[in-house]
Amino acid sequence: MRLVSYAQPGGDRSGGEQAGAVIASSAGDRIVSLAPFTVVEIISDAKALAAAREVVERATASPEVLPLLADVQLLPPVRPGKILCLGYNYRGHVAAGEDPTAGDPAYPDVFVKTPNVLGAPGTPVLLPVASSEVDYEGEIALVIGRRAHAVPLESALDHVAGYTLFNDVSDRHWQGRSSQWELGKCFDGFGPLGPELVTADAVPDPQDLLVEVVRDGVVTVSQSTSTMIFSMAFIVHYLSQVMTLEPGDIISTGTPQKLPEALETHRALAHGDAVTIRVAGLGELTTTFIDPTSTDPIGDPHDS
Amino acid sequence: MRLVSYAQPGGDRSGGEQAGAVIASSAGDRIVSLAPFTVVEIISDAKALAAAREVVERATASPEVLPLLADVQLLPPVRPGKILCLGYNYRGHVAAGEDPTAGDPAYPDVFVKTPNVLGAPGTPVLLPVASSEVDYEGEIALVIGRRAHAVPLESALDHVAGYTLFNDVSDRHWQGRSSQWELGKCFDGFGPLGPELVTADAVPDPQDLLVEVVRDGVVTVSQSTSTMIFSMAFIVHYLSQVMTLEPGDIISTGTPQKLPEALETHRALAHGDAVTIRVAGLGELTTTFIDPTSTDPIGDPHDS
Repeated sequence: MRLVSYAQPGGDRSGGEQAGAVIASSAGDRIVSLAPFTVVEIISDAKALAAAREVVERATASPEVLPLLADVQLLPPVRPGKILCLGYNYRGHVAAGEDPTAGDPAYPDVFVKTPNVLGAPGTPVLLPVASSEVDYEGEIALVIGRRAHAVPLESALDHVAGYTLFNDVSDRHWQGRSSQWELGKCFDGFGPLGPELVTADAVPDPQDLLVEVVRDGVVTVSQSTSTMIFSMAFIVHYLSQVMTLEPGDIISTGTPQKLPEALETHRALAHGDAVTIRVAGLGELTTTFIDPTSTDPIGDPHDS
Repeated sequence: MRLVSYAQPGGDRSGGEQAGAVIASSAGDRIVSLAPFTVVEIISDAKALAAAREVVERATASPEVLPLLADVQLLPPVRPGKILCLGYNYRGHVAAGEDPTAGDPAYPDVFVKTPNVLGAPGTPVLLPVASSEVDYEGEIALVIGRRAHAVPLESALDHVAGYTLFNDVSDRHWQGRSSQWELGKCFDGFGPLGPELVTADAVPDPQDLLVEVVRDGVVTVSQSTSTMIFSMAFIVHYLSQVMTLEPGDIISTGTPQKLPEALETHRALAHGDAVTIRVAGLGELTTTFIDPTSTDPIGDPHDS
């Protein structure tokens, strides 16, 4: 199932949001409301999930009566109580004959992003006045569906409701100013999330997904989750030894390496740049970066 | 004003909480309910604050009719949306003639604790099964009262509602396993907060407070906020360049150095140890550490 949160059409100014499911149809993706449930209720409560599945099944019979997904304003699929992120978690390329695991760290490097980073899919990131060297990190985020405390490795994925995309936007200058990276990671809006939470049953193998990032039309990242150092199951197992993971919490599983050519030509994000993260089965998350002090017009990133 | 949150006496099992104010009286501290307001409403809304002050003023006339503070179950004074913490922020002792600022870092080292750490004043910390080297850090936490985004240094303290105490409990082993400290900082319950939020008008100079920590009857920390590297005003100013600070957010301003004798005899916290943070005017925050697998009885830490 493909779950989204979206703004209640004609809702009041308090910004009511509701859960929906995306249904593919020949004339474009459609959306069916799963109100009154929230996405977190659906992923954490078996009865709500069963009810949602039934709504989707009925709606699939005649999708043409449903609103187009393109016509609704998407919100982050969940509002996580915790946004946990991994540092280095994809192996780099090594020469033939070398052991690709030789540089593996013993333990994952974990940091936390604050709730103010959360951004809706498609909403631009405003380059902050104080930022100076903004970069993207295209990642797969797993979403907790069932409370997890000290869970064994074997059953860790039972606590994962599904997967979505996350751009761990980072200011490299602020990140490098001190030993802890947080300030470079926690600018307002530095965490676009979405577009959809794809439930785990629709993802045959989370360790066999190709993560691609396209920057201004050029593929800069292309690496499979099979090259992760710490698997998603291990990450949930490991983190749950420390903290109780709650439904709606997300763990962003680290960014793959930029391709060598992309590294060579890399420059900080600037006004009008667009970054798309795409993973087959999980959709695309496009973020445009805007300098609010600039007067240059921004094109449509989907035209590039 | 001395603000607290406490469990609604006779409240239902959902754990209703309400705001109160502490009123000193000759027969012990009393508590007056500020319902229906929450502490965050009182510190962020001028009308709620005025109403609360009026309630306190009236109650002060005859405190003997009020319940004793000791008879209510305190909760964390606020439930922060963000728990931001500083690393090294107190200068060490230097020999006479040496410049005490010589070792100052250029920028504060900031990290984030997740909401699962939050603990009520007086509630024990359960030593987690996976922990191995648990330590205390007695700190003053400032509480944001007015939204702060990119505020100048001069007016930064206008956004601070008041001050309270925070124990930045840390597992040194987990903290040192990787470059980022978060996992050592984010075990469930590793953030007792309270007992009171003392409003800023009752704290003449936040940079002239003596922070003391007593461990099992021995003073292990005794250092003034006058020896801070980055002042509270600077910290709010600096962090607000990155993230919008919201009412109820806390910034724990770093732990003073342990005294030399305390460092020499230091050992990890174990079953039955008690740690009290005390600051004149801000009260005392005592935390007992309990190994849930131990069968040894725990004494009353206030008897030691």
